[in-house]
Amino acid sequence: MSKIKVLSNEDVKKIINLDIAIKAVERAYKQKSNNKGSVWPIVFYEYEHNVFDLDIRSGNLVDSNAYGLKMISYNENNPSKNLPVVNATALVFNDKTGEPLALLNALSITSYRTGAAAALAAKYLAKKNSKNLLIIGSGNIAKYSVAATLHLIPTIENVYIYNARRKLDEKELLAFKEAVNQLLIASNSNLTANFMLVDDIRKITGSSDIIITATPSDKAIIDSSWVLPGTHFSCMGAGLVGKQEIDEKLFSRAKVFADDKKLCLEQGEAQTAYKKKIISSFDGELGDVLLGTNAGRSSDNDITIFDSVGLFLQDLATSIELIEEANRKKIGVEIEL
Amino acid sequence: MSKIKVLSNEDVKKIINLDIAIKAVERAYKQKSNNKGSVWPIVFYEYEHNVFDLDIRSGNLVDSNAYGLKMISYNENNPSKNLPVVNATALVFNDKTGEPLALLNALSITSYRTGAAAALAAKYLAKKNSKNLLIIGSGNIAKYSVAATLHLIPTIENVYIYNARRKLDEKELLAFKEAVNQLLIASNSNLTANFMLVDDIRKITGSSDIIITATPSDKAIIDSSWVLPGTHFSCMGAGLVGKQEIDEKLFSRAKVFADDKKLCLEQGEAQTAYKKKIISSFDGELGDVLLGTNAGRSSDNDITIFDSVGLFLQDLATSIELIEEANRKKIGVEIEL
Repeated sequence: MSKIKVLSNEDVKKIINLDIAIKAVERAYKQKSNNKGSVWPIVFYEYEHNVFDLDIRSGNLVDSNAYGLKMISYNENNPSKNLPVVNATALVFNDKTGEPLALLNALSITSYRTGAAAALAAKYLAKKNSKNLLIIGSGNIAKYSVAATLHLIPTIENVYIYNARRKLDEKELLAFKEAVNQLLIASNSNLTANFMLVDDIRKITGSSDIIITATPSDKAIIDSSWVLPGTHFSCMGAGLVGKQEIDEKLFSRAKVFADDKKLCLEQGEAQTAYKKKIISSFDGELGDVLLGTNAGRSSDNDITIFDSVGLFLQDLATSIELIEEANRKKIGVEIEL
Repeated sequence: MSKIKVLSNEDVKKIINLDIAIKAVERAYKQKSNNKGSVWPIVFYEYEHNVFDLDIRSGNLVDSNAYGLKMISYNENNPSKNLPVVNATALVFNDKTGEPLALLNALSITSYRTGAAAALAAKYLAKKNSKNLLIIGSGNIAKYSVAATLHLIPTIENVYIYNARRKLDEKELLAFKEAVNQLLIASNSNLTANFMLVDDIRKITGSSDIIITATPSDKAIIDSSWVLPGTHFSCMGAGLVGKQEIDEKLFSRAKVFADDKKLCLEQGEAQTAYKKKIISSFDGELGDVLLGTNAGRSSDNDITIFDSVGLFLQDLATSIELIEEANRKKIGVEIEL
């Protein structure tokens, strides 16, 4: 018998903000690069291809004194039942005893930690004084990625939004902007950037300092020939075999960083470039750049790519922050297990 | 937001009994053999060899409308902190939507489902009218295995208890018997068998109809030359690379059944026989025998071996039974997640 803390999605939303997520994700990546965090094999199961699948991700963080797992499922049939497409549930354990510490609804955590990763990569790998941000995708992860990036990089003046499957309208643009605004307000930040729809993706790609991809695409949306030297990419959409968002030829022109080298070669944005032998390895992991053991970008002419499959370590570090904050604020319930 | 059921170990103990576990494990094995259950890859992590390790087992059962996972850890340092050596936590999900349904303390479930498996194998693979049962090991799994086997096979008259590491005394024998008695009482069963300590393991092996092994051993305790035709083995202790309880040469004389063929060759009792090319495959899975698609034992002279690594499907089927019973009896709590 032990007591565990339970944080529902409502509880998590009362506590979490961009600062908490960014700080936690930075800590997770650094521990990983310091050999103080390990990523355990992903369990994947598919009930129906591209309709209903799930995975179990797990791992440990030494300095956070914890290990754990997240079960995350994606089910396209859910909205017709008034249920969320994604369900995410995390368990956190004490790494000295094995006792369960907490159960968390990890839905919001997943959005925040993914946005935080996109932003951290942009902050550390993009050119200084970046002004133009292009976001490919207009869903949840796109909103959190833009908000976290604006929060971390105040020089950004223009945000361009592009959906490769259909043309967005002005109403959707405003809704997107308002969602980002709310995320920034919750983190005591102001929205000053202009938000615009993309008419000519080729032209906007060429004028972007930072491009974030956050789509479920399985073919390249951005052609290598459109990309000018100096551009940074945070590729957040891949994470399954068969996924791709940017032209694999870009990898031969870029410095490429992974969240996890092994997983990214298998199922990240780099998988096609790797299969076609355009690259054989990465320049490093983002954690190395955060630690300063890898210089990252060497000049304003480098093209940089951050390839993220998404690590449970991000959720774990964020969960630990949330548990501590929930205890301080007396949020959530404690149950006997 | 969804409501999930939480069953603590105390809640589970109010509901679970040998009948529930045996029925559930039988259903799990049958579904697996009917291609209605899948066993997903095991995640294993070791903090300190033979001192603190953990694994994540997971899978789904179609007819139980569920999938899920169990995090189980083993920590030899815990008793000195007044904590249990084993911690086990299970999550169950709806297999149509991906919503979390329940969180369970899976400690008692693990003991019951393992005992149920040992007993089911003995019932279906041992000779009719078996009288003598030898249990190798005197810990928790040994007690549950003996109780479930006595419950399912009323012809058993004698139970011999053997601990390979140290000689047990009469007090320990009585405590073991009383633990078995309590498990039988909770399932409306009577204890009629005699309980005895083993003086001469070689002799008792030769006179046993059923031998159950339930130890953490990494070398053979039972020599093949001691074993007479007709004996049945339920090997419950293996489940990690490097484990072994019975002489690998026995496999060349026996009909061998697995809970999961692939996992048993890798990390079950059969691993050494497989590595030494004494066997290349199994005669079937226990589920095939339960379904009647495999005849199992063909004569009273067969030696039969059931090799069990332990499947999450056993925990899942048991958990589903417990959740339904808990809802009927209004046991456990419901929490917002």
